[in-house]
Amino acid sequence: MTAIHPVILCGGSGTRLWPMSRKALPKPFLPLLGDETLFEEALARVADEAHFAPPIVVAGAAHAELVTAQLGERPGARLVIEPAAKNTAPAIALAAALLPEDAVLLVCPSDHHVADRQAFRAAAFAAAALAREDYLVSFGIAADRPETGYGYLRRGEPLPGGYAIRQFVEKPDLARAQEYLASGDYSWNGGIFAFRAGHLLAELAAFRPEMAAAVRAAVEGGRTDGARFHPAAEPFAAIAGESIDYAVMENTARAAMVPADMGWSDIGNWAALADALAGEADQDGNVVRGSVDLSGSRDVLAITDGPRVSVVGLEGVCVIVSGGEVLVTTRAGAQAVGKLPGASAP
Amino acid sequence: MTAIHPVILCGGSGTRLWPMSRKALPKPFLPLLGDETLFEEALARVADEAHFAPPIVVAGAAHAELVTAQLGERPGARLVIEPAAKNTAPAIALAAALLPEDAVLLVCPSDHHVADRQAFRAAAFAAAALAREDYLVSFGIAADRPETGYGYLRRGEPLPGGYAIRQFVEKPDLARAQEYLASGDYSWNGGIFAFRAGHLLAELAAFRPEMAAAVRAAVEGGRTDGARFHPAAEPFAAIAGESIDYAVMENTARAAMVPADMGWSDIGNWAALADALAGEADQDGNVVRGSVDLSGSRDVLAITDGPRVSVVGLEGVCVIVSGGEVLVTTRAGAQAVGKLPGASAP
Repeated sequence: MTAIHPVILCGGSGTRLWPMSRKALPKPFLPLLGDETLFEEALARVADEAHFAPPIVVAGAAHAELVTAQLGERPGARLVIEPAAKNTAPAIALAAALLPEDAVLLVCPSDHHVADRQAFRAAAFAAAALAREDYLVSFGIAADRPETGYGYLRRGEPLPGGYAIRQFVEKPDLARAQEYLASGDYSWNGGIFAFRAGHLLAELAAFRPEMAAAVRAAVEGGRTDGARFHPAAEPFAAIAGESIDYAVMENTARAAMVPADMGWSDIGNWAALADALAGEADQDGNVVRGSVDLSGSRDVLAITDGPRVSVVGLEGVCVIVSGGEVLVTTRAGAQAVGKLPGASAP
Repeated sequence: MTAIHPVILCGGSGTRLWPMSRKALPKPFLPLLGDETLFEEALARVADEAHFAPPIVVAGAAHAELVTAQLGERPGARLVIEPAAKNTAPAIALAAALLPEDAVLLVCPSDHHVADRQAFRAAAFAAAALAREDYLVSFGIAADRPETGYGYLRRGEPLPGGYAIRQFVEKPDLARAQEYLASGDYSWNGGIFAFRAGHLLAELAAFRPEMAAAVRAAVEGGRTDGARFHPAAEPFAAIAGESIDYAVMENTARAAMVPADMGWSDIGNWAALADALAGEADQDGNVVRGSVDLSGSRDVLAITDGPRVSVVGLEGVCVIVSGGEVLVTTRAGAQAVGKLPGASAP
């Protein structure tokens, strides 16, 4: 079997995980769940050389040193340094343009957690097989709650190892999310994709010809510096940023999905991290990191990088002390953390 | 009218106001409500030279410099430095023994807040008048809730400006506290007293002869150093610490009380401070000090001495950041703060 080419995207800012996630050290590069960062987890999932080629990492210049440090020794790995953040379509197209036409890309965000790596691999192999048949493949994450914060994929006709995608659904309201969950026909769009490089670029050229041309010009005028590739800044700067879903997936006639029930979480906010860490909770549902004293508290997530945190009588609250900032939020409020004044500070 | 001699007691530790209140800088010396510390408030209430003599402050050696700094220029003020903390009876007896027999003492804790100073003065004058008639007088604080954390005074026969005390009641359970509140016959024992010096010492000699003798020896063997008086350590060390209520008030036949409805609070914990600061609250009931961002929160007290505090979605919670410690407590939990590991650290 031909090796799959992992493409690891490092574009997320993770402002809802402020104050730990900062512009200079965003979510992918933080050891949120254990000793590994989410970026290191993403690398580890595709580290098996029997099935995966060395990864292509796409990141902004501000994070190049973080990527290099956390990438470690990975012969053949490449780092594409984006001159500007342009959402996922240009980032993926850059990587595709650097690979042979028949290479199969596995596009992986670097800020997600996957508990079951075996299930991830199985889904990746199924997705790659469909991509070799010129399907544009999305992982359909098994939905376990009526989440209103994600897009959904509605499954259509069966394909080998997956399904055609019958419909892309924007973030639904709660009533519709509950219907989707009950029907069993919908899964979450987790932003993990498989494409054949040449096919993806051809579809992009069909639906977004200007973007495709600009990406090609940025690659042709680019500069290689060891393992790093710097696309030409000028053509890339002119691109209107767009997600791969909008630019290609929702337009193509060959969208497919593979079901993936793999303990996935985008660790989208502190409540989601608390859920992902539930296995470490004490008998009262509390999870702590660092110097924390709890008294009469339940379902508390408390993390501190130094100062002692003392919590009395609280339930369902996250207390995060990091870099001289103190955040206290309910689980329900966690979604609003990214809009705090502190979260938009440098 | 003869001047009243204020005796300001600085013995309280205030561990329930940790992490702001520490052993080295306890509650009386903190500006909890405004620019003045509670100790400075206590001094200011008795600063009127037409009615009050210079104060006698009783404090431990650890806080002598704090007392001196916050006392400021107060000609004639004296500082009695206790060799050891022995509760209120020995502290008050020390001060009484340093005054003429006919001096009237007004004993004031230094860790209480009084919103209405005029009402305080009126009660003080009434108490002093009764003390001159050899009553041992306690302020009966107007109860406005069924508090279970205080002792109660039950009023008896009327006296000029006050009442005889019919009964001293220990901290009641909630049902009894509710009865007391409904009956109107009970008020809180706030620890504010008026005594004629010679009479107090005579009563102490009657009920606690050993303590009275030890205090007398500590004064006779003591040493004056400018405004400071150091009681002899050895006799004082032998005293069994006891409150003035147990040692004298509950035993005397001449216990009296003056009603005092004066916006009193012992600022006993963070919830009590939040209540005392309610006048500063925003429209959602939040009170903040320092760099605080609130989002979707109600009835929050947030105080920080530096690090920014961001609070999302909380209700009825106190967040205190002080000296590198972070405390998050519900109002209901505030009573338990003194038992936290941090609160017993130096």
